[in-house]
Amino acid sequence: MTKHPKSNLVLRILYFLLLTNCCWLFGSQLIAKETGRSDTSLTEEKLMLVANRLKSLGLSEEKAHEFLLQLTSIGGRLTGSPQAEEAVKRAVELMKELNFDRVWTEPVTVNRWVRGEKEIGLLKSRKFGQQKINVAALGNSLATTEEGLEAGLVEVHSFRELEKLGEKVIKGKIVFFNQPMDRTLINPFMAYGQAAQFRVKGASAAAKYGAVAVMVRSATFRIDEHPHTGLMTYESGLPKIPAVSVATADAEKISRWLKEDPEIRIFLKTSCQQLGPVVSHNVIGELTGTKSPKEIILVGGHLDSWDLSPGAHDDAAGCAVAVEALRLIKDCGLKPARTIRAVLFMDEEFGGTGGRAYATAPQRAGEKHLLAIEQDQGGGVPLGLAVGKTPELLNKISPLTRVLQKLGLHWVKNGGGGVDIAPLVEQGCLAGTIVPNTQRYFDFHHSALDVPEAVHPRELQLQALALALTLYYFSQEGI
Amino acid sequence: MTKHPKSNLVLRILYFLLLTNCCWLFGSQLIAKETGRSDTSLTEEKLMLVANRLKSLGLSEEKAHEFLLQLTSIGGRLTGSPQAEEAVKRAVELMKELNFDRVWTEPVTVNRWVRGEKEIGLLKSRKFGQQKINVAALGNSLATTEEGLEAGLVEVHSFRELEKLGEKVIKGKIVFFNQPMDRTLINPFMAYGQAAQFRVKGASAAAKYGAVAVMVRSATFRIDEHPHTGLMTYESGLPKIPAVSVATADAEKISRWLKEDPEIRIFLKTSCQQLGPVVSHNVIGELTGTKSPKEIILVGGHLDSWDLSPGAHDDAAGCAVAVEALRLIKDCGLKPARTIRAVLFMDEEFGGTGGRAYATAPQRAGEKHLLAIEQDQGGGVPLGLAVGKTPELLNKISPLTRVLQKLGLHWVKNGGGGVDIAPLVEQGCLAGTIVPNTQRYFDFHHSALDVPEAVHPRELQLQALALALTLYYFSQEGI
Repeated sequence: MTKHPKSNLVLRILYFLLLTNCCWLFGSQLIAKETGRSDTSLTEEKLMLVANRLKSLGLSEEKAHEFLLQLTSIGGRLTGSPQAEEAVKRAVELMKELNFDRVWTEPVTVNRWVRGEKEIGLLKSRKFGQQKINVAALGNSLATTEEGLEAGLVEVHSFRELEKLGEKVIKGKIVFFNQPMDRTLINPFMAYGQAAQFRVKGASAAAKYGAVAVMVRSATFRIDEHPHTGLMTYESGLPKIPAVSVATADAEKISRWLKEDPEIRIFLKTSCQQLGPVVSHNVIGELTGTKSPKEIILVGGHLDSWDLSPGAHDDAAGCAVAVEALRLIKDCGLKPARTIRAVLFMDEEFGGTGGRAYATAPQRAGEKHLLAIEQDQGGGVPLGLAVGKTPELLNKISPLTRVLQKLGLHWVKNGGGGVDIAPLVEQGCLAGTIVPNTQRYFDFHHSALDVPEAVHPRELQLQALALALTLYYFSQEGI
Repeated sequence: MTKHPKSNLVLRILYFLLLTNCCWLFGSQLIAKETGRSDTSLTEEKLMLVANRLKSLGLSEEKAHEFLLQLTSIGGRLTGSPQAEEAVKRAVELMKELNFDRVWTEPVTVNRWVRGEKEIGLLKSRKFGQQKINVAALGNSLATTEEGLEAGLVEVHSFRELEKLGEKVIKGKIVFFNQPMDRTLINPFMAYGQAAQFRVKGASAAAKYGAVAVMVRSATFRIDEHPHTGLMTYESGLPKIPAVSVATADAEKISRWLKEDPEIRIFLKTSCQQLGPVVSHNVIGELTGTKSPKEIILVGGHLDSWDLSPGAHDDAAGCAVAVEALRLIKDCGLKPARTIRAVLFMDEEFGGTGGRAYATAPQRAGEKHLLAIEQDQGGGVPLGLAVGKTPELLNKISPLTRVLQKLGLHWVKNGGGGVDIAPLVEQGCLAGTIVPNTQRYFDFHHSALDVPEAVHPRELQLQALALALTLYYFSQEGI
């Protein structure tokens, strides 16, 4: 039986024109003309035809989430781990299966740190008894001794407060950084930036005054029992003390109880270890430009993740949309004039060596990177495009702006960037990001909750679609 | 111990100014001046101060979700049911507890329909055996006989296809409308509008050719085992036949199997009933205008829901943000010049009698409704404001547009509306809607999945915040 999706004749004809072979043929002719002449700019009308093709193919399936499932099925992909190398292997296979024009890896030297056995955290109080608390070693932290470590607790909410208390109060204690993310900020990343400083710099700041360990409130708006890990660093010249994150529900409880029993002691046992540098890889796949193959429009996510979860939002999502964007462009029969390249970076979480290795690799000789888009804010519904630094660029790309609106992205403004593309941006490449809704992102981020089920397949696919259009536009128009 | 949330001095001072008592005092003075003179317009600067106050109070807690939990704890609130009346009672109590200036109910006559016992759906095939299928009676449908109904199946995808098959094929059969929502449309409501026509009009369309029942594919992008109900209507002069929705996973399976075994028969047993008209209520609470109390800026959601779930997104969310918006305005000490009124309508799902009763109630005499905002697209993160019909209005409200951007709503355009406010709009009142992300909405809509856990507390709260600012702006500025 033939299927007529609309009963109204006019609508049916429009539907037919837009979503089936007629559009494909007309669209192909227009686009073929356009890609055949690099001096012809992509008008809004032509770009809309491209968008309709990408949309018909892109939204009829949810391939981005399928790719995400392939990566997350490996589990946590901590930089330098066998799982991270398995991810490298699978990403190469995937891009080859999708028939990208070139697929290869480039070496990256990364530090390998392992969590070891599951951490033990105990609260000991004469008033409240002994209770388990949910802690996780922060990435890069040293371990406690094998016997563990026990000490009294000092709660602080800022570095200034720590300084004020000084050695007299801090010495021999565990410092408990308990500053919540500021939920009155609209942008969760702003709130995260403020809160994460205690995770990153807290240990050395506390060690300066003789603390024996730090326990840092997890960076999330939610109150739950899942510790959120993340990178911490040691300042040279100061003692290196163990650092753990504590779940927000525990942080709230400890803070409450500490007011009633200031003598509370905390026992911590961690067995994380530095295993030294190992060689890992960035994974790269491209659709080679038909006119200017050495001019690159790049999109990147990162293959590594933290080890507490399969890192679905952070950043299997970014890798998945990068791969899916290239697949969409290819499978729509679009031939980019400049090279569109997906780079799945290694080691974003643990130092950003992948981004630096890519930018300085010998293979970069003779290549010119015009634009690098980094997708590393989770798999939420896309809201807008942040790109470049000048109003002139925004004026120039107004056809893209208007067509992105039709895909539900209502703004284009200057901005964009990320850890992995920063070295390219330093070399003069423009930055970009398809900015998703991030209101839920820190619910999952760096914790056991960052699982594939937390990523909505259609929202992720919309991100891939907007990305495909943006990459294709810049591949034709340049900067 | 004092808490210093920032270690950087400049940031700390700014923080202090914006989020604490200083801002409160300065802000109050400015706002007091402004509300004291109705000829003074709310400049962007003044409105930003209002927004900061609303934000500090509004985002520090997630009250909208607390209100949503109060409503959803009642369970499904089908119009005319005891649960719907319990919702009326609790909504009145809530608004009174929040000290709104006036709280009252107005009567609405609604049809009471009950689902009766859980429906039975069986697929019977010589090839595949007998299998349970997940069905739910459509709202307003008649029941099968007590023995149930069994017949062969004809799958169609459009009314045109149905017409083409005609009585010869259809007579004595169950018509299976299996047209999926068009996932290539960016706006899920567009796709819903297309698919829902089979739910609404399918029974009569099929009865015209002698069908004995209809089974309609659930309107959702997801493939799962949850039937989505919703209103259906009977065309006068045609036989009234039972109508059920079927879960998408079952629809896919049945369609596949039907190709291999066209003799498949379906057994359906439903026991739904019309219990005739009963009196229910709209619930109304307001902050009475200090200058023009008879000029109304209205915000509405609907108290009734379908019975398969507690209707968290549809539309406890709308009720919750309406109440929370008024609470925020009140608890920030803002005194609206015009009346800001929250109306929790009864019977949106089953005929819209609540909206009509409100618009035509004797209490409306002497009142002038300038703007009615309807929130009935779920509790997703707010994306923009759709309001009014003219570019002139958009020009006029540019301060609101710019301040909404600071709250993360990047667009204001003409539009807005809904079933409940349609009768007011017909009388000349402008329409508005804070438009949320709806990409996930139909995953839950009208099914057992529409539970409080499906609504993100912070996203809902952001909707209430944007709503509060918008209501307050229009209460001061008029239209």
